[in-house]
Amino acid sequence: MDEFALIRHLNKKAQDRAIAKSIPSYSQVATGIGDDAAVVGISAGMQLVAACDAMVDQIHFLPQTMEDFHVGYKALVSNVSDIAAMGAIPKFALITLAVPKGLNISRLESIYDGIYACAEEYGVAIIGGDTVSTPDSLSISVTILGEVEIGQALLRSSAKAGDVVFVTGSVGSSSAGLHYLLAKNRVEHSPDSAYIEFIRSHRMPKAQVAAGRLLLTSGYGHALNDISDGLASEAWEIAEASGKCIQLFAKNIPISDSVLQYASDINYSPLEWALYGGEDYQLIGTVAAEYWDKARAQFEREGLAIYPIGEVLPGDPEVRWVNEAGNIERLEKKGFNHFGR
Amino acid sequence: MDEFALIRHLNKKAQDRAIAKSIPSYSQVATGIGDDAAVVGISAGMQLVAACDAMVDQIHFLPQTMEDFHVGYKALVSNVSDIAAMGAIPKFALITLAVPKGLNISRLESIYDGIYACAEEYGVAIIGGDTVSTPDSLSISVTILGEVEIGQALLRSSAKAGDVVFVTGSVGSSSAGLHYLLAKNRVEHSPDSAYIEFIRSHRMPKAQVAAGRLLLTSGYGHALNDISDGLASEAWEIAEASGKCIQLFAKNIPISDSVLQYASDINYSPLEWALYGGEDYQLIGTVAAEYWDKARAQFEREGLAIYPIGEVLPGDPEVRWVNEAGNIERLEKKGFNHFGR
Repeated sequence: MDEFALIRHLNKKAQDRAIAKSIPSYSQVATGIGDDAAVVGISAGMQLVAACDAMVDQIHFLPQTMEDFHVGYKALVSNVSDIAAMGAIPKFALITLAVPKGLNISRLESIYDGIYACAEEYGVAIIGGDTVSTPDSLSISVTILGEVEIGQALLRSSAKAGDVVFVTGSVGSSSAGLHYLLAKNRVEHSPDSAYIEFIRSHRMPKAQVAAGRLLLTSGYGHALNDISDGLASEAWEIAEASGKCIQLFAKNIPISDSVLQYASDINYSPLEWALYGGEDYQLIGTVAAEYWDKARAQFEREGLAIYPIGEVLPGDPEVRWVNEAGNIERLEKKGFNHFGR
Repeated sequence: MDEFALIRHLNKKAQDRAIAKSIPSYSQVATGIGDDAAVVGISAGMQLVAACDAMVDQIHFLPQTMEDFHVGYKALVSNVSDIAAMGAIPKFALITLAVPKGLNISRLESIYDGIYACAEEYGVAIIGGDTVSTPDSLSISVTILGEVEIGQALLRSSAKAGDVVFVTGSVGSSSAGLHYLLAKNRVEHSPDSAYIEFIRSHRMPKAQVAAGRLLLTSGYGHALNDISDGLASEAWEIAEASGKCIQLFAKNIPISDSVLQYASDINYSPLEWALYGGEDYQLIGTVAAEYWDKARAQFEREGLAIYPIGEVLPGDPEVRWVNEAGNIERLEKKGFNHFGR
């Protein structure tokens, strides 16, 4: 079996396993992997939602930060997060792998295991892709397809003056995990137990699909964005797309205890990670102030987290930061830059 | 403006130009580039068709074979061809570019110009993508989305015993073009005029969307496949997917006069290019024998080419080759391998 036949075989094996586990999206697949293109049905009353996101070895991950399984998992989950950020339902994915010559086949198996573990978790059917050789680094490019009720997608541009700005969970965890792994400079098979949570946030972050759906179906959600490049950058995107000023309060930003502990241990500001660190994949968005209490109650009933972190003000698009001393600054627009390069 | 802001600017500029030219697919785009994901409508009575195909510098193209404009054009048209091969209508595309550090911005502009020239030609709306840095080679990964009437897609698996096997145009042209360009070993801005046609076939091949649609809407088409890896490999795919024997006749394979001339000049077998050369993007398929004359007449009326090149026989899946002396051989299953690596 040549290299590509083997990859096709691996893909087929993983797919059969996924189909056997009855991921419902497969019921919409008329023609899957194996023809020139896949053919799928889109549910009545729904629009198609599509996004793509790529990850490159040495740019988005390093051997000492991510095992191959994590690389596969994260390549897909970062795409699922884009669907969550529209309030939509993830359905299908196409995966393009650029594989360096001579890559050990067991490494590819682990990447596929990670991809399919994520696919199963979020009910995504893998319907196609391409595998090409590359003279250089491994890269994974994923296209995710989802569905959303016609005209209901939650856009960045929908923030209204008076809205409460929220985030769906702790931020900065992924960056703390990255910092820890880079500092250790080796793959940690059994990391310090206190730090497992935020290391996992870096390697296997969760996409907030349930929160996105609740914001859409309840009608409470206005603007919505996922945090792939840090809270600051995403808040700026909403401010600019909506033409509004967003004011965030330092004291309200949720940061997990273990991240606070680690930051204190290494004498670093956890807010740096929260504001300018990437890949938390929490959602940031806005809800009308008069519905905030109802929205929060409904999140609580469904076992989902939501934290008020600021407010939308009329005025020129910018992001203001009320620091812990109560002084207002303009928040820097910079976003996450992988490994500071 | 940083590198990525500039890329976004280029993309936006090209998109505005495309929208201004009224590509009808844009009327189905509710949210295009600029949010976490695109939102598009799928027409009533249609299924979604999706494929992806990637091209990597040094593997799929070389500076002496393709100018940047061609790289962009071909990355998209190879995907459009996958939609044509289902009998479907191309609609939307998402483009992921992995850009080496320090790549000259005018090169990126040329790639985008090529992408958007192709998008315009085939009525494709560019709805999203990703741009990432890479430490290595430029690569382009495209996801194409199209629409097809529910249950009507033309699959590889639909060949029936007794069918006529056809091809929609000359084959081997792209490989002849590649051979010529590699032999010259430099970018030819004004190649020998006799060879312009097949050099163009290599750099800016056509996707056979109209032929695919005619085969589907007329009801004449059974199996269908596009020729990305050579006639032999694609005929094998149909034979195996359909569980039938395909017999091809050497004397019937259409090869253009200029390719025959060039092959003769360099003392090479043009059938090698036709059978095992890649990227012609013609369609190979089958039509019931009793409808062949009608199908051919309808192709002629619409100004489209179609050539009978063989027949589908009952029996074990394989591809037989009736050579010019009338002897039957088993056709080798090998496909196109870029630059023989």
